[in-house]
Amino acid sequence: MTSSITGGARPARAGTEGPVPGGHRVILGGERPLKLDCGAELTDFPVAYQTYGELNEDKTNAILVCHALTGDQFVADTHPVTGKSGWWDLMVGPGKTLDTNRYFIVSVNILGGCMGTAGPVETNPATGEPWGLDFPVITIGDMVRAQAMLLDHLSIDELFVVTGGSLGGMQVLQWAASFPDRVFAAVPIATAAHHSSQNIAFHEVGRQAIMADPDWCGGAYLKKGTRPHRGLAVARMAAHITYLSERALQSKFGRRLQDRTAVTYGFEADFQVESYLRHQGITFVDRFDANSYLYITRAMDYFDLEAEYGGVLANAYRGKKTRFCIFSFTSDWLFPTDENLKIVHALNAVAANVSFAEIESDKGHDAFLLDEPEFHRVFRGFLDGASEHRGLPRP
Amino acid sequence: MTSSITGGARPARAGTEGPVPGGHRVILGGERPLKLDCGAELTDFPVAYQTYGELNEDKTNAILVCHALTGDQFVADTHPVTGKSGWWDLMVGPGKTLDTNRYFIVSVNILGGCMGTAGPVETNPATGEPWGLDFPVITIGDMVRAQAMLLDHLSIDELFVVTGGSLGGMQVLQWAASFPDRVFAAVPIATAAHHSSQNIAFHEVGRQAIMADPDWCGGAYLKKGTRPHRGLAVARMAAHITYLSERALQSKFGRRLQDRTAVTYGFEADFQVESYLRHQGITFVDRFDANSYLYITRAMDYFDLEAEYGGVLANAYRGKKTRFCIFSFTSDWLFPTDENLKIVHALNAVAANVSFAEIESDKGHDAFLLDEPEFHRVFRGFLDGASEHRGLPRP
Repeated sequence: MTSSITGGARPARAGTEGPVPGGHRVILGGERPLKLDCGAELTDFPVAYQTYGELNEDKTNAILVCHALTGDQFVADTHPVTGKSGWWDLMVGPGKTLDTNRYFIVSVNILGGCMGTAGPVETNPATGEPWGLDFPVITIGDMVRAQAMLLDHLSIDELFVVTGGSLGGMQVLQWAASFPDRVFAAVPIATAAHHSSQNIAFHEVGRQAIMADPDWCGGAYLKKGTRPHRGLAVARMAAHITYLSERALQSKFGRRLQDRTAVTYGFEADFQVESYLRHQGITFVDRFDANSYLYITRAMDYFDLEAEYGGVLANAYRGKKTRFCIFSFTSDWLFPTDENLKIVHALNAVAANVSFAEIESDKGHDAFLLDEPEFHRVFRGFLDGASEHRGLPRP
Repeated sequence: MTSSITGGARPARAGTEGPVPGGHRVILGGERPLKLDCGAELTDFPVAYQTYGELNEDKTNAILVCHALTGDQFVADTHPVTGKSGWWDLMVGPGKTLDTNRYFIVSVNILGGCMGTAGPVETNPATGEPWGLDFPVITIGDMVRAQAMLLDHLSIDELFVVTGGSLGGMQVLQWAASFPDRVFAAVPIATAAHHSSQNIAFHEVGRQAIMADPDWCGGAYLKKGTRPHRGLAVARMAAHITYLSERALQSKFGRRLQDRTAVTYGFEADFQVESYLRHQGITFVDRFDANSYLYITRAMDYFDLEAEYGGVLANAYRGKKTRFCIFSFTSDWLFPTDENLKIVHALNAVAANVSFAEIESDKGHDAFLLDEPEFHRVFRGFLDGASEHRGLPRP
């Protein structure tokens, strides 16, 4: 299928900065459309992004931070919907590991997202109504190509570093494979070169929970004035368990009761872990779109870099000069060390410049978002070394 | 709360055998009610069960098989709803590990279940309508006491063996703690003395999926003529992932596509693992009741034998003579070896007679239901030894 789809939620000229609460928004693809893996094309589509720090004169200090499934471009400032601090506030800021006194940080809401970039929640210009399920199914490759178009718009030829965890790490791997000349260094974290069978299974449960909600209305809930909050909350609850570890849940909650001294012999949230999960579900639906959840999980399921390169992952990086630093966490069972090591082995097979660190942590997959001093220490060390190689000034 | 609740779905006199498709059904608690942990009492309530083999004259060869969350009493014969063979057909039968030529096998639909024993799907005699959420919340202790009342009815004083996996194993542990004089030998399989935080979390996701379905109708769906099929299917899908292992999913399905050569860029079941999970969800709702799922998962969450015995698990078995054989499976991440070893250690602390076997398997939690020759070999060996100690004739 090849069809031309014209995007753009809010009136704006191609290439023109448009306002978005707390960040930037630009319309891209006016002159040259974005060709999607599914065969469709997007023209005049919005991309929302955020920046921190200053781009140097040579434009050599840009770091692209790629966000995870439920993340967004608000990496290190107040979230416009929740009012909470950014999801990587620990990492990005003056004097922090991604030091905004030294680096220019760019973070882009991914294609298919719901914070200003083209996705099912944005307006389909062909109908004047939200895209819903008419939005084309996108891939990690599509997300990365849209980001590359934004960098063209910002006149940044080469990124100093591309980094991100989980789905963010998938984007990093795709960036280094698709645009090796534009990536000086790549730092994929807690990720994999393909989504595993078990991970596809968990995603499918989440999607089925959303689609089972009658308020989903076959994907057309925005037109109908409903929101599949119940289904989306269940999807979030199931996913959230996979972001933690058995040990983290045990030490954080154990079998402790929630504001009571004995079980109630009922179906209320007797246990703290139940109360915590319900809270995760309820708060999530206020800031996230159910169809976006479908599209982004699908893109992750479809990700298979090995298959894209003829069944040999090493081929994705053969003869390329990007230097890598790869992180995994011992208690991460969603993207375990094994999956990260496969990437290391592929890079070793083509004599790439690669560092690897498995960080001891009991915090599970979410460790990359949390205060893990060893992770930050190694990451900072890698950045210092890469800065020197890139000829960036010392701090 | 102490109240008197009178049960019994179909007209029958207390203590009288009633017909149930393919099995037995008896009304118990007519003279002496079943006192539940929640404070309520059940009188004249039905218990459905199945037997295989013959009880010997001394009544010393009875083995009680306790079923798991979604199991039932149809251990080794055709299921009256699905038409499929029994869930432990591999284990129970002439010449099999639980040899019906030697042993008298009893299996009871648990309290709260939906195959004939008192539970939310049965009729509340006070209203003439299905119990729904008016059924009292029950515990593993309650389930075991109901089974003990059935054994009284069958005039079986002492069980040769009590066995079962998962929730079945919890019942075994409870049996040996509550009725040590009635249990010659106990074989808990792939279980734990309390439900972990992560397992409570997964159960809560399942319950929320059911309750999120508008057809659940606050639990009163049977009165309203609806069934929360979508929510129950999602609950089953989520749970089913936890019954397998990452390795089992990878080898069984990997990233293989379902009846197609390329992904469809849509939300159909492109991957075999998606198709498999959907099938698990869809078929489950035909044979299981959504409220039963709530009640039984709740009973598992509440299970904490250590807490019941003053914070010291060993106290549950101090000075008792039941001999134990405990099994775990290497790839079971729902009831991992660690949890089973805690039981072994508690038994060792009171110098109980205990064997333990960790079976090498990549089949995950479900391994106890499957063809694992080493598991069957060790189980049979334990039974042969116990038979000799019990003075049962050699085969």
